Amino acid sequence: MVVLLDRVTDLRARVAEVVDLAQVAALLSWDQETMMPPKGAYFRATQAATLQGIIHERLTDRKIGDLLDGLDEPGVNHGLSEIDRAMVRVVRRDYERATKLPASLVKDLASVTTQALENWRQAREESRWDLFAADLKRIVELKRQEAACVGFRENPYDALLDEYEPGATTSQLQALFGDLRRDTIHLLDRIDRSGRQLDRAVFAQTFNSTKQLAFTELILARLGFDFSAGRQDKSTHPFTTSFGSTDVRVTTRVDEHDLAPALYASIHEAGHSLYEQGIPLELVRVALGDGASLGIHESQSRLWENFIGRGLPFWQFALPRLRESFPDALASASPGSMVAASNRVERTLIRVEADEVTYNLHIIIRFEIERRLIAGDIEVGDLPSVWNELTREYLGITPPDDRNGVLQDTHWAAGLFGYFPTYSLGNLYGAQLWAALRRQYPDLDARIAAGEFSIVLDWLRDRIHRWGRMKQPAELIQEATGEAPSPTYLVAYLNEKYGALYGF
Amino acid sequence: MVVLLDRVTDLRARVAEVVDLAQVAALLSWDQETMMPPKGAYFRATQAATLQGIIHERLTDRKIGDLLDGLDEPGVNHGLSEIDRAMVRVVRRDYERATKLPASLVKDLASVTTQALENWRQAREESRWDLFAADLKRIVELKRQEAACVGFRENPYDALLDEYEPGATTSQLQALFGDLRRDTIHLLDRIDRSGRQLDRAVFAQTFNSTKQLAFTELILARLGFDFSAGRQDKSTHPFTTSFGSTDVRVTTRVDEHDLAPALYASIHEAGHSLYEQGIPLELVRVALGDGASLGIHESQSRLWENFIGRGLPFWQFALPRLRESFPDALASASPGSMVAASNRVERTLIRVEADEVTYNLHIIIRFEIERRLIAGDIEVGDLPSVWNELTREYLGITPPDDRNGVLQDTHWAAGLFGYFPTYSLGNLYGAQLWAALRRQYPDLDARIAAGEFSIVLDWLRDRIHRWGRMKQPAELIQEATGEAPSPTYLVAYLNEKYGALYGF
Repeated sequence: MVVLLDRVTDLRARVAEVVDLAQVAALLSWDQETMMPPKGAYFRATQAATLQGIIHERLTDRKIGDLLDGLDEPGVNHGLSEIDRAMVRVVRRDYERATKLPASLVKDLASVTTQALENWRQAREESRWDLFAADLKRIVELKRQEAACVGFRENPYDALLDEYEPGATTSQLQALFGDLRRDTIHLLDRIDRSGRQLDRAVFAQTFNSTKQLAFTELILARLGFDFSAGRQDKSTHPFTTSFGSTDVRVTTRVDEHDLAPALYASIHEAGHSLYEQGIPLELVRVALGDGASLGIHESQSRLWENFIGRGLPFWQFALPRLRESFPDALASASPGSMVAASNRVERTLIRVEADEVTYNLHIIIRFEIERRLIAGDIEVGDLPSVWNELTREYLGITPPDDRNGVLQDTHWAAGLFGYFPTYSLGNLYGAQLWAALRRQYPDLDARIAAGEFSIVLDWLRDRIHRWGRMKQPAELIQEATGEAPSPTYLVAYLNEKYGALYGF
Repeated sequence: MVVLLDRVTDLRARVAEVVDLAQVAALLSWDQETMMPPKGAYFRATQAATLQGIIHERLTDRKIGDLLDGLDEPGVNHGLSEIDRAMVRVVRRDYERATKLPASLVKDLASVTTQALENWRQAREESRWDLFAADLKRIVELKRQEAACVGFRENPYDALLDEYEPGATTSQLQALFGDLRRDTIHLLDRIDRSGRQLDRAVFAQTFNSTKQLAFTELILARLGFDFSAGRQDKSTHPFTTSFGSTDVRVTTRVDEHDLAPALYASIHEAGHSLYEQGIPLELVRVALGDGASLGIHESQSRLWENFIGRGLPFWQFALPRLRESFPDALASASPGSMVAASNRVERTLIRVEADEVTYNLHIIIRFEIERRLIAGDIEVGDLPSVWNELTREYLGITPPDDRNGVLQDTHWAAGLFGYFPTYSLGNLYGAQLWAALRRQYPDLDARIAAGEFSIVLDWLRDRIHRWGRMKQPAELIQEATGEAPSPTYLVAYLNEKYGALYGF
């Protein structure tokens, strides 16, 4: 028993050190995106590389492996506290992923993606696939090697998915996404046939940036964001980052000629940040202080952004407050007109500009391509044509060039394969949580309209946030909603919402 | 030769890692002072402690000692480049200081100063010496131990001085400060006898904070601060920090009811930051990318703040620009009235509020106390009475309580002994550099009045900045001015300037 406690103490100390350094690395990135002067990049690169090297060195220390070996046998494991048991599980996972990859593979990936990001930027700008194809070919080869090193049961793509969504498999996603795709295409057809289009003119006026920012801060605070444990700044691409749950920072971006980007970026990041701020202190330095997965994280951001922020009750609450800042522009707006403006559905080419209905089709295109590519069913050279075919099949439109097609996203250049599906998983999970929440509170709409967002936050805190990384994503959803993850709720929600908006 | 090059390469890699991590640690501090939300302190403490632990571990790695042993013998050393030779010298110094101190001493100092800072804050607030005396007694014991561990030739205080001002000794400072003290006391008497007092009413009006900040940015840019390699923010106590010479950040503070604090804090920090921005890239990751000493650093800030910023030519340049921001408040101001307002001399109790003349007396009080305390000539219990006696003797006034006397500064609670003298060394060095610069450019005043600050910056870049830590402070001053450090120039400057201002 003494030996057991010594081992736990030793492991906790080593893990805490890795966590501390990872928080520091996150601060370096945050600073780089928000505060760093341009020339600061010169030394920032070496600072970050040195820090990452030490994090890797400490995480892969053979002694961590020995301690884990001594702690995660079932017999021993049962003597541990629930938190220590979860720590052993997640550290085992992180340790295995980190040690299974040969240093040469990690180094090759780092160097080819650095180069690839440069080339991709130029390729996209000039819409020239040939400037990027060779890099991507190399990246795909390395990711296939990575999958082989990490190991998998059924499908090599599983090994990559597992990094972002622990426990998720290709076959599972094929089932979830298959239904979602079919039903979404059907919904899109009904929207087309309605002959109606929603008007977003109310958003497309001139809105002072400072006032927009002040309003997003007011909304953040009302949703429950704790400004004594976080802050909001501006950046080109909005994001959330956490240095432990008492310092969680979000960013937003502002467009003087469109109300939507700042407001919805802030609400989206509010979802991520409320999750991070809700993680108990005692989970942080034992490597349990992150979200359960990217999909669960995205469920939080989408729930607040779409299910709440684009709904009538939210606008009943928000419009009078927003009108105080912009009395002229919003003089004749109604909650209903704001809802219409924030839910216009269109068949468009760019994922990041897509609406709530078409968004998942963009994701499923990428999922289909990644899965086939990693399995070797298609090769990099096939991508532009496969991309355009799938876009035609799912969205009914064809990219006029690769800039608006296969070259639009940065993820593959950065070596991120298995990441895209988590966006749609977030929508699925979000819808399922939302349905469970509504079952529990039949008067939810009225309470949101009255600004009682704490009813939502408290429920999410209890079912999701307080667990940090202690549970697997599927387990969390099962326990929070009483069911395994399913596309049913998202499909039902979309049909109901857009049926009402488009009058069918 | 191959072995030699291998050793240099190995040492460079190890040193670069320590430098990178020290830059990261500096970012943690900067963020804490400027951006971090209050609750962020909770995890920031462990982040910083972990990082400092790793920096110490890497710097004191036995392998660095072995590499240094193989490299700094005179025979071998001559085969090295000038930069590598300087790297070996400074790393030897840092390594020795870090390894000579037993871990227990470092730990005791860290824990007693953490506690002492808390207690000092309360002691100062309540003006109760007894709340702080026991902590300070313990700190002084530990600093005496530190001096014994580090070693010294003549005086134990030398070992502490050397940390901040390499090569400086107690006897040297006694000589420099002895003359300075005598002549300053004499000058103060003449100012008193002049019967004149300068009017600072023009500063004590209402000035919009945003406009003040914008003006300080304009001035920073005009002095030569590169905003693409730095930024300015607000903090309670202004400071400069560098994460490599391409990312140098300054802070300032603003008082709506006084023009001086923001302007002179910004110009002061401009001096520090221009130094840091002027250090060549290739010196940074070989541990030569800092200032030569705190004294040399302070010479830069004081030169810009006092010798330039409080002079007539500066105000001839600045007043018309400042008046654009504050036309009403400055309607009847003249460059001469601005100079008068920024140079009022008064016998006051608080160092940080002191003018250019009395400031050094405040420092010499602290120097005298530190030197006697570390040598064991006085004990902590004697401090309040010694403090008050010296204040009476030098400044001719008596603190009414310890809050306005011995308890006013944070340095001792933080364990900083040997630090105060560098402020006055900065004034001495600054005056000596200023005199050399004026000899070289007889039309300097006219060129400053025309806003040609680059003439000053270029000269300082050449004589001081570009050397980073490659030379010892005394060597730098000798080569820049043709003479060893001397109080002559500061005394002459003060006499001339204040003689003119006070009419004698």
